Order: sequence, then structure tokens, then C-alpha cells
Amino acid sequence: MAVNLPLPEAAELKPVAGIELGHAEAGVRKPGRKDLLVMKLAPEATVAGVFTANRFCAAPVQVCKAHLEGMRLSGAPIRALVINTGNANAGTGEAGLAAANETCTALAGLLGCEPAQILPFSTGVILEPLPVDRIKAGLPQAIANLQGDNWLNAAHAIMTTDTQPKAASASVVINGKTVTLTGISKGAGMIKPNMATMLGFLAFDAKVAQPVLDRLVKQAADKSFNCITIDGDTSTNDSFIIMATGAAGVEVNDIDSPEYAQLAEAVIALSQKLAQMIVRDGEGATKFMTVQVEQGRSADECRKIAYAIGHSPLVKTAFYASDPNLGRILAAIGYAGVDDLDVSKLDLYLDDVWVAKSGGRNPDYQEADGQRVMKQSEITIRVKLARGDASATIWTCDLSHDYVSINADYRS
Amino acid sequence: MAVNLPLPEAAELKPVAGIELGHAEAGVRKPGRKDLLVMKLAPEATVAGVFTANRFCAAPVQVCKAHLEGMRLSGAPIRALVINTGNANAGTGEAGLAAANETCTALAGLLGCEPAQILPFSTGVILEPLPVDRIKAGLPQAIANLQGDNWLNAAHAIMTTDTQPKAASASVVINGKTVTLTGISKGAGMIKPNMATMLGFLAFDAKVAQPVLDRLVKQAADKSFNCITIDGDTSTNDSFIIMATGAAGVEVNDIDSPEYAQLAEAVIALSQKLAQMIVRDGEGATKFMTVQVEQGRSADECRKIAYAIGHSPLVKTAFYASDPNLGRILAAIGYAGVDDLDVSKLDLYLDDVWVAKSGGRNPDYQEADGQRVMKQSEITIRVKLARGDASATIWTCDLSHDYVSINADYRS
Repeated sequence: MAVNLPLPEAAELKPVAGIELGHAEAGVRKPGRKDLLVMKLAPEATVAGVFTANRFCAAPVQVCKAHLEGMRLSGAPIRALVINTGNANAGTGEAGLAAANETCTALAGLLGCEPAQILPFSTGVILEPLPVDRIKAGLPQAIANLQGDNWLNAAHAIMTTDTQPKAASASVVINGKTVTLTGISKGAGMIKPNMATMLGFLAFDAKVAQPVLDRLVKQAADKSFNCITIDGDTSTNDSFIIMATGAAGVEVNDIDSPEYAQLAEAVIALSQKLAQMIVRDGEGATKFMTVQVEQGRSADECRKIAYAIGHSPLVKTAFYASDPNLGRILAAIGYAGVDDLDVSKLDLYLDDVWVAKSGGRNPDYQEADGQRVMKQSEITIRVKLARGDASATIWTCDLSHDYVSINADYRS
Repeated sequence: MAVNLPLPEAAELKPVAGIELGHAEAGVRKPGRKDLLVMKLAPEATVAGVFTANRFCAAPVQVCKAHLEGMRLSGAPIRALVINTGNANAGTGEAGLAAANETCTALAGLLGCEPAQILPFSTGVILEPLPVDRIKAGLPQAIANLQGDNWLNAAHAIMTTDTQPKAASASVVINGKTVTLTGISKGAGMIKPNMATMLGFLAFDAKVAQPVLDRLVKQAADKSFNCITIDGDTSTNDSFIIMATGAAGVEVNDIDSPEYAQLAEAVIALSQKLAQMIVRDGEGATKFMTVQVEQGRSADECRKIAYAIGHSPLVKTAFYASDPNLGRILAAIGYAGVDDLDVSKLDLYLDDVWVAKSGGRNPDYQEADGQRVMKQSEITIRVKLARGDASATIWTCDLSHDYVSINADYRS
């Protein structure tokens, strides 16, 4: 069902020295599926993350933030990540915080570190108590499975309504040494900027100082996971984590160095790939759409317009139907909230087809041309605002019958 | 398919002295359907309107605004409204403006008035040229049909994807005299505040001075049509018009008078009924939901939260499925954009069922109770923010398979 998203093969996913991954079937919500993942880090690794902007941020997100802050103060490194699916541990109040902390304490006991050196993550149903005993009971199995070449199982273990695992590797040569990058992601609904029910974990074996990694994770998120939307719902649990193990003998400690630029380029490219995989596997998706807004006064107004288009159920159903009912795109631009927008200057393209010119239908536009593009599985919507030099790009998918089915049936 | 929306009967719809309505089958988009309406006004009537906030506002909306402005300057009253379905005349640039003006000129010629005394309205597909010749050719038939007791045909003539006509009457006794009010509305998709692909026309036979009517139309819209959402898309053509014919011998010229209060109460109640009819007939709707946000710091923040809930596809599909997956409501509250919201104080009710207490699951909440309410066709979602005295209420519907079908097939 996913749009142009080939299944990853285990052999393509390169181990990152300094990271071991172990999965388990803990039966968090349903028996017989991989639903628990432990990622163990070498002691010299640095870790940085960005998290959901949702005010109802889940208990594990609160604990992650506190542990990352504690790590900055104490210098005691993060030693492991633990991720469960089946339950988001969100909207669970004090009991939820206690459950997230209990998970950390249990894993710390097994690994011989402090609870504050563990980062917990949860994804799944909101507003239900976390079955922490089942998670604790599953940890020894996950630890027994720890190994470096376990990325495909790891990608499986974090899936919820995803139809397939999402994982990719890349490499970049810096100062003559090869840095290996591998990442996994999950998410298929409740996907919106800042951020999504989306988990992303990206590791590489360069050595990166903490402040540099903090900057890199934000920069990568802003150019990848913060540019996708499926249904406009921002989840309570979104997290994107970058781990730098340092095993490759390459150091990047200066944001203004060419080494940083090379590493950032590779990290951003892999992050975009992982983020786009989420859209390609969007709930019920049949089309992958790139929305590109150009010639705006600010990136912010371009993003507003791109998201208005990307969120419009009318636009999304028209793409699902391959129906070039493109006035719906103009309507979305019109209500995007750019109050002084002069629509009489605006141009709209669908791939190479010039649909609207100076705010009205392009006299040369033929519906057959629009139809041809709409039938593709990958489409670029391009809007030119003719009022500046700023631009923004987001990625989204269509809205199909299956989206409704999946979300009407998710818990049953 | 509409939710608790009985078909109006012609006998229930009371004529308003000073208004005649004439419909025609002009074949604007498809033959054999009522798609053109003329509403002729007594010369002493006053008229006021509010229009879409969409920057891509349609040609007829631009002409309406200009003609209402001209009426204020010249004193020459508005003498007729002309409404076509099948084509929105939006995204049509200069040619669209010319077409709207040509419609006004044609009708003015037939009625013996100036083009500036006509208000034009269009609803339907965006970005296609208005077939103005067909509309002009249909006008004589509409004029031949003009009569006072033609409201049900009028309600039929403005339908697009509506499954049934929307019309209602009311009356109010002011100073011992009965004022009769009748209104019609249309709209089923692209429905959002400020405003919707929504047309509303409300007439009564009290006499109301222009500045007072200008105030009344805004007040009524803000409490009715601006409180509904189906899919979050604000249309290019929304218009809500109030017409005061003055035939009943009741005058309302002072906003601070008890007469104004009585009239406003009746107008607001009828406007709410007409607005709620649009939601009840929302594309694919199976549930009618009232979202009530209380104890906020401002009405604006309450509306933000109410609309985040009302727009969330995840909330809407859960209601469609009668699935009390109510954490989705908390997630929507969390991303509504109220940045300093303390969610640990927040309570959530579904009708009389207390679901979330102090930001977490209410320990006494039983899923069976949530399930019982979710199965109803009318549901109130109530959020208490515990941070002030402001509140807001909106009305919305669920998101079903039929919504996708209707919007994927709309033009075919």
C-alpha cells in the first residue's frame, strides 16, 4: 500500500560501531509482535534529541528531556534507549511519569548504570495506563538479543500502524575516513510538523561534541521530520534522536568546519529519507506529494501556505481521486492566513503544468494535462507568490478511504 | 444520511411580505436541476451581509461587496439577489468579474433597475469559467416563477452536494406585532469559520435601519455560521445575507432598544438552526458534535481548542467508529496552539461522562460509559481549562468513508 517504498533488506542496513540493538515481544498490547526495543550505546557516545511541541507531551518525553538535561549537568552519558509500542503513556498523569521512570530503573539495573542514563520512548494508544510490568518482563529478552546488525528487527519493533519497517543507511567520507550512518523511523498517522507520532533514531560513528550535536539534531529535524504532514495532528510523543558513537575516528567539534558541513549534509539527507518514508507509508496513502511554495516574503508564510494545502481534506481527496479539481488548492492558499496576500499575482504549477496564472486559470491550461499529472504516484505542487525570495517545501500524501478505515478501526 | 435533519415542508415555511422568490433550471453544470434563484425585494427593504475571509474571494463576492458599498453611498436600495449553483466563479480573474457583472446587468434589465442594485452569488466548482449565457437564458424562467411562498424551491435551487434542502421559519412578537422570519442555507463541505462554502439568506418583515442591520448580520454570523466546521476548509464564496423588508409595521432603529434585543434573539436562533443544518448535512456526516470549551482566559483560546478538536481527522474518525479513543481529543487540545496551557488542570467530559481529570484519565472513568455516549448521534465534548471565565462553542460532525467518496467523486 505504501507509495514507492521498497522493503529494506537487512544486508543494506549497516551496523554503526558503538550501537547494539535488541528487540523483544513483550505483549504490551497484543501478543506475538515485536513491541520492545533497547538500543545500547558505547559510553563515549553523545546523544541529542528534539521532541513534540504538543502541550500534552507524554510521560516518556518529559523523562527524556529531564535525563538529557541531567546528562548535560552531570556529564554522565546516556547509555541506552528503550522504546515500546502499543501504548503511548500519554495523558496518564503522575502514574505515567512513575511508569516511565520505573522502566528506566529496570533497564538501568540490568545494564549496570543509573536510571538517568536511560531515555524512554512510547508510542501507541493515548490515555491508557502503561503496562509497565510487561515491559520490565520483556527487557531481559531484548538484552539477550543485543547486537550491532539488528537494525531491521529494530525497525520492526517500533512499528504501530506502519505497514512496513522504515530504515536506511548511508555513508560519508570525512578526512579520508568513512562515517557510517543508519537510522530507523516510524509513524503513519497523527503526523504534522513539530512533530508527529513519529519516532526517528539516527546513529553514526563520527565523534561529535554535545553542543554541536544539539545543533545538528535541530537542523536535521527542521529540514526533514518538521516538513511532513499526513493528517495535521501533532502527536504527544514525537521524538527524533541522533546518536554519535565516535567509533570511526572522525571528530566534528566545530559548526563552522567543512567536516560539520559534510556530516550535516549526510545526516539531513538520511533524515529526509526517513521522514519521507513516513509519508510514503502514511495511513491509506496512494500518492506522495511535494508542496513547494516559492517567492514568499518569509519562509514562515511559505510554510503556512504549504501546510494549508497539505492539510486540506478537499485537496487530499481530489488527489486520491486523481481529479484535477485544482481550485481547491487556490481556496486553501486563500485561507492559509497570509492576510496581505495579493492572489492576483499568484501562479500555480502541477509538476510542469502551469495551471493558474496571475490568480486565475491559465488560458493555456488543458484539463487533460492536469489529469495526466494527477494520475502519477509522485506529484509536485508548486506555488509562486511573486512577493519575495523565501521558500518552503513540505511532503504529504492523499486522503483515501483506507485512512478512514485505519483510524476508525485502530484500537479494535 | 443527514443527522437528525427532517425534511422541511413547504407549509412550514412562512412567506415574508416584501420578498418574492423565483427558481429556474438553467443547466449551469448539469441539466434538469434547479440551479438558479432570484430573490426580489420590496424597494423599502434594507440588506446587509458578511462574506468569506478567504483571500481568493470569488468574483460574485467582490461584486456583492462593491454593490453594498455603493448602496450605502447612493442610497439606491438593493432590489434583487441572484444565486447560481454548479460554478463558483472563483479563481476566474478579470473574466470572472465581468461574468458576475454581466449577470447583474441582465437581471437589472429584466427588473427595471440598475445593475448596482443586484447582488450576485455563485457556488460550485472553482477555477472554471462561469457559463454566463446559460444563467442569462435562465433568468426569465426564474422571474416567471417569482412568488412569496416559494421558499422550499429556493432552498432546493441553492443546493450543491447537500443531500437535502435547508430552510426554517420563526416568528417573534415585538410591540404586539408579529415579525415573520424565514431563511435558507446551503453547504456541506469546505465548511469552516469565516466562513464556509456556505450560503445563508435570512429575511424578515421588520423594518431595520441600515447601520443596525449591518451590526445584526455580523452578530448573528459570529454566533452561528462562524461556529461550524466540517473539514476546516474555508471557501472562496461564503456569504450570509439578512434582508429586512419592513412590511410588518415594526421598526427597529436602536441597537440598545428592547426591540433590537428581541429581534436579535430570534435572528440568532434561526441563524444557528440554519448553520447547524449545514453540519447535520455535512458531507458523509453520521454524528452531530457540539464542542464546548470552558474556563479559558479568552474566548479566542477556547475557540482555538474547540477548532483543533473539531478539525482533527483522528478525532473525527474515532467518532465515526463510535470508538472512545479519547486520548486523541487530549492530543488535539495539546497542539491547539495555546502555548502556556497547563494540561495538568484540564478536565474532559463526553456528555455526562467524566473522562479525563486533572490532565490524566479519570480513575472512575469506565470505557463502557464512553462507549455508550459515542454510539449516540448527538454528542457534546466538554473541556474545562480551569484558567478563566471565557468559553466558546462550535458544532461539527464526524469524518466517514462517505466524506472521502463524495469529495473524490464531486466533479464526476
